[in-house]
Amino acid sequence: MLICRYADHGRRGYGRVVHEENGDLLTPVRYDGRARRWVGGIGPARPLSEVTLLPPAEPSKIVCVALNYAPQGSPAGPARPADPASCAVVLKPPSTLAGPGAVVGHPGEPWELRHEAELAVVIGTACKGVPAQRAAEVVAGYTCADDLTAYVRRAPEEPTGHPPVWAKHFDTFTPLGPWLATGLDPADVPITCRVNGEVRQDGGTRGLLTPVHEIVAVVSRHMSLLPGDVILTGTPAGSGPLSVGDRVEVSVPGIGTLCHTVGAASDRPWAPGPTVDDGVPAGRVTARPAPRSA
Amino acid sequence: MLICRYADHGRRGYGRVVHEENGDLLTPVRYDGRARRWVGGIGPARPLSEVTLLPPAEPSKIVCVALNYAPQGSPAGPARPADPASCAVVLKPPSTLAGPGAVVGHPGEPWELRHEAELAVVIGTACKGVPAQRAAEVVAGYTCADDLTAYVRRAPEEPTGHPPVWAKHFDTFTPLGPWLATGLDPADVPITCRVNGEVRQDGGTRGLLTPVHEIVAVVSRHMSLLPGDVILTGTPAGSGPLSVGDRVEVSVPGIGTLCHTVGAASDRPWAPGPTVDDGVPAGRVTARPAPRSA
Repeated sequence: MLICRYADHGRRGYGRVVHEENGDLLTPVRYDGRARRWVGGIGPARPLSEVTLLPPAEPSKIVCVALNYAPQGSPAGPARPADPASCAVVLKPPSTLAGPGAVVGHPGEPWELRHEAELAVVIGTACKGVPAQRAAEVVAGYTCADDLTAYVRRAPEEPTGHPPVWAKHFDTFTPLGPWLATGLDPADVPITCRVNGEVRQDGGTRGLLTPVHEIVAVVSRHMSLLPGDVILTGTPAGSGPLSVGDRVEVSVPGIGTLCHTVGAASDRPWAPGPTVDDGVPAGRVTARPAPRSA
Repeated sequence: MLICRYADHGRRGYGRVVHEENGDLLTPVRYDGRARRWVGGIGPARPLSEVTLLPPAEPSKIVCVALNYAPQGSPAGPARPADPASCAVVLKPPSTLAGPGAVVGHPGEPWELRHEAELAVVIGTACKGVPAQRAAEVVAGYTCADDLTAYVRRAPEEPTGHPPVWAKHFDTFTPLGPWLATGLDPADVPITCRVNGEVRQDGGTRGLLTPVHEIVAVVSRHMSLLPGDVILTGTPAGSGPLSVGDRVEVSVPGIGTLCHTVGAASDRPWAPGPTVDDGVPAGRVTARPAPRSA
């Protein structure tokens, strides 16, 4: 099932997306945290083209798992960390959210913006200390993300060092979408990133050092996860620089393709959508869901 | 002016606290982001003892500025960093919030819990790129915080190293309160931390390497600040370990005293108050506001 979040004349909600011959339809739904599923019957179906798509989550926190794929060129077969609790975790603020089709703000000099295509987990049920084998029960769905990160450009002779503290904090640095897929098995989904049509990242969750369900377990052991919270699971090899004007497409079969472009950073404070920077009319989203993988 | 956040039979709101001979009174107020001030006239005054105090902010993010005081024993006169943008910043999730009088959860072995008494800034107006000299305009108020942090205990011969990635992420690790003080000049306020009555930290914002208004400037240059967002400005020397049963009091003249105790961590997911762990009836908060410093 595909679930989008949308805005329509100031109202916001979630909707099940159904592909019809005459155009996509949307049926309003809500997440029932007790039943742990999306339920409908709360409004009539309508054309998806009439609404504006928003990021398909309203997180209180965005948890990024960094360095969760073996580096390019490392020996075949990922080396799992001895203890998943040692994985590198940073938080992104909710002001990094951007919707499908968003224009993401390049922070400008001295920052180098880099794409990081990822599978994102969206939590459905408040939870703490979830065992990995029960992680699927607390997930409302999966979506595509670009975990944008900015590094400071350095002279070639200087070592790169650690990313600066602000690297993942800039507004609009977490495009999410175009919608959630429920019931996806996250153990082995391909992840592709194209920049201006050229494939830059081509990997998948089979390469994760800490797999998705174990990530949910280790994060929820250290902090509560709340409905809408987002976990970015790590990016496969191939992350590279982006310039103003670039168009990025993150594709995951079973979900679809998240598109965003890169523009100049706005001087105005970030606001939840819809704004011109935060969502575009669904009719203008060119991405179509790829066939379900299972 | 002192502004608390409170819960009353399931309703939540902000209230101006006025000290009367017969007991403290609360008058409902709301923050007018355009006028940049708290406005009243939205409800009758009532005894403060009838409500439950909550953390006096509803942040979308909690920004911690670490290492913002010269280490104990360093030469007199703080050395300011060459560029405030180089200050160490980490985010805490909103699930770290705890109210005045809260029982904070000790995460248990192998973690060592440490108190970090701080002045907290609460943002009133959405902003981006605020110059330091205009920072006061976007602040709704100041309050006391314990920026609780957990380190992994190590054998004496092992180096301590960097704090682990989870250090500031545990539920209830940011007790805030007891209320906001508006109109405080944050340039030179004393900060005291007592544990079980014994003074453990005795410093003040005069020792900050990056002063409060510059912190607002540098943070808002890198990410939007939204109404309710919290900035923890750094802790003076003297941070030390806490055990289950300890009682912590963070005092800032002009604001008051934030009290919390340390208990075992809850197995249940964090929830915004009021719960027994999140807020206590105001009548049971023993802290009284200290005299205004100016």
